[in-house]
Amino acid sequence: MAAQVKNAISPTRAEDYPEWYQQVVKAADMAEKSPVRGCMVIKPWGYAIWENIMRQMDAMFKATGVKNAYFPLFIPLSFMQKEAEHVEGFAKECAVVTHHRLEKDRDGVLVPAGPLTEPLVVRPTSETIIGEAFSKWVSSYRDLPILVNQWANVVRWEMRTRIFLRTSEFLWQEGHSAHATAQEAIERARMMLDVYARFVETCLAMPVVRGRKTPSERFPGAVDTLCIEAMMQDRKALQAGTSHFLGQNFAKAAGIRFQDIDEKEQYAWTVSWGSSTRMIGGMIMTHSDDDGLILPPRVASAQVVLLPIYRKDEERGPVLDYVNQLAAALRSVNYHGQGLVVEVDDRDIGGARGWEWIKKGIPLRVEIGPRDMAAGSVFVGRRDHEPRQRQSLCPSAHRHHQ
Amino acid sequence: MAAQVKNAISPTRAEDYPEWYQQVVKAADMAEKSPVRGCMVIKPWGYAIWENIMRQMDAMFKATGVKNAYFPLFIPLSFMQKEAEHVEGFAKECAVVTHHRLEKDRDGVLVPAGPLTEPLVVRPTSETIIGEAFSKWVSSYRDLPILVNQWANVVRWEMRTRIFLRTSEFLWQEGHSAHATAQEAIERARMMLDVYARFVETCLAMPVVRGRKTPSERFPGAVDTLCIEAMMQDRKALQAGTSHFLGQNFAKAAGIRFQDIDEKEQYAWTVSWGSSTRMIGGMIMTHSDDDGLILPPRVASAQVVLLPIYRKDEERGPVLDYVNQLAAALRSVNYHGQGLVVEVDDRDIGGARGWEWIKKGIPLRVEIGPRDMAAGSVFVGRRDHEPRQRQSLCPSAHRHHQ
Repeated sequence: MAAQVKNAISPTRAEDYPEWYQQVVKAADMAEKSPVRGCMVIKPWGYAIWENIMRQMDAMFKATGVKNAYFPLFIPLSFMQKEAEHVEGFAKECAVVTHHRLEKDRDGVLVPAGPLTEPLVVRPTSETIIGEAFSKWVSSYRDLPILVNQWANVVRWEMRTRIFLRTSEFLWQEGHSAHATAQEAIERARMMLDVYARFVETCLAMPVVRGRKTPSERFPGAVDTLCIEAMMQDRKALQAGTSHFLGQNFAKAAGIRFQDIDEKEQYAWTVSWGSSTRMIGGMIMTHSDDDGLILPPRVASAQVVLLPIYRKDEERGPVLDYVNQLAAALRSVNYHGQGLVVEVDDRDIGGARGWEWIKKGIPLRVEIGPRDMAAGSVFVGRRDHEPRQRQSLCPSAHRHHQ
Repeated sequence: MAAQVKNAISPTRAEDYPEWYQQVVKAADMAEKSPVRGCMVIKPWGYAIWENIMRQMDAMFKATGVKNAYFPLFIPLSFMQKEAEHVEGFAKECAVVTHHRLEKDRDGVLVPAGPLTEPLVVRPTSETIIGEAFSKWVSSYRDLPILVNQWANVVRWEMRTRIFLRTSEFLWQEGHSAHATAQEAIERARMMLDVYARFVETCLAMPVVRGRKTPSERFPGAVDTLCIEAMMQDRKALQAGTSHFLGQNFAKAAGIRFQDIDEKEQYAWTVSWGSSTRMIGGMIMTHSDDDGLILPPRVASAQVVLLPIYRKDEERGPVLDYVNQLAAALRSVNYHGQGLVVEVDDRDIGGARGWEWIKKGIPLRVEIGPRDMAAGSVFVGRRDHEPRQRQSLCPSAHRHHQ
């Protein structure tokens, strides 16, 4: 095969790492820039990864007692102002809603109308609005701890954006908890960092280093910010999740007070932790190669593609039947609580078909023709660099993926 | 029991239906108003219902070939203007972002800064921004149909709000598709209405009537709006989902063009369909009674609560062990692809405990004391009005919930 066909992605990692990244995203059809400055469109092949991340991370959160909830997109300007460091950190990158209507001007052009008495900030993070809710939910030590999480979109106005890694709007989860003691809050912050590390290592197959941010890198308003950092192929670190011990800063700003067991009034101790679609960017940069995306099976948009092969028209029917039966068998395999996701690609487009799936990073490509049917075997190509191998199709093989 | 204890909700439905509704939501701890005008906080007991709706409806969408994606929260003002009827319908209720920074004024008060060249509308619905994406994705009839859905928040500024039923921000799904022919688009609009009807009837246990909106009630810009309507206990209808055949209106506005099989350029035919957290309001008003919320099991935040009962301290250990074993057994039951969600409430608060779960609408309350353990039976209270009954605990009983 000629060199320009072999290298699906141009430039290569060695030639231009940032541009290689953009081209991998494009070739895999994961996401694209939108006409709205700094925002992205996440296409189905990219969004399926986020769905797999959400499902598996959510189960890990719930196993620690966290429940999901939903808080407003908008934060009154006055709330942002309550915590001094917080406002300094986020004021420079907020989208601000100032009107609640549109009207046509004399030329028939739409213009903002209905000015708001108090402008609203599109949440860059929700400590302030969730703190206000907590202040109403807590009155006694018996109400603590509160452990909630939300899956949501947030907006931080960015001047330079890179798809998945840094966009003005992104999707994330933000966990928030309130505790009766500093010790319990610190333990929760560490526990959630541990969940992140286990999730990223197990599901995204990315080794991480656990650490602590320097004071200048801390979350604005936090006493301590813990983080996991992963190493990319260009030898740069990427932050893949953070967990913040907020002390009593936000509790004092929002008035989260409770009566302790001795009937003394105390401020609660709060924690927050977050991870985002940025993880998808980290996953791409950790695993992919000059042929394109490589997806870890646990979060892959699909685990297997079946590629029927036939030369004669009369072979088509039997091969497709066989392939569809195999697809059904694979879809019934329990893979971490879900059926395997299996694509069947019967398009007649020659070698371009295989390359498309390589660029999309699907973990296994399986080729099946009349001779394979007769031999009870298939050719399997593993995306993570193992050579294409003949594999026998014994029924028990399905049971390995647990 | 005295009358004022028996009736958990005041006023009753007969006394004041709208106020009864608000009190049911409050007593079940499902959601509350937020300090942000017209927005709600969905608390864990309410949000779990939405999670169950999303999981099960999502599987139904995917079974019809729909894949999930994500599109920007913000829509440039110029996009809104492209479809004449659409802009008339939504211009009056939009949140408009006009600035991207905050600054402190001379008094140290935060004020909007960094005015945007083009204001952005917070999406009230996404036809215009998704249409723009489709126009880039489609060039040939081979690219059609496109079938995508997104789970997202939207904002429609409302003057009078009611929790779940009408809020400025709400959560929803919006499906969008583009087709090569009008016939195929019309069939898809009907198919998705059918999915809504089956979902609402099966999972929310709400009978619905399928119908068509009058021209004045149509979605702004639609050629035809199909809907399902459910009957509330106050004999008012509630719209529970809509599916719109958009003709070529949005395709022409956004330029979604393709070459047909005869190499002629055509505009695509588009469809959109949506359902929202409003369904939770409809579910409440369909099933609940003067004692509070009644949850259909398929979307219930939890299906069963186990209530250990003991009088003497030495009974406590054995009863709790027994209850925890029963909880583990129930959690391993496969209930529509998930384990049953089981709460164990061992608080020592007397009769208030049972009433709390009645008000929260949990389908089954199970009381277990030392005598029940000895008899191998339990007392089961069904929330939907069957009297409290003694049930034997034969192991096969667990297998009925499939």
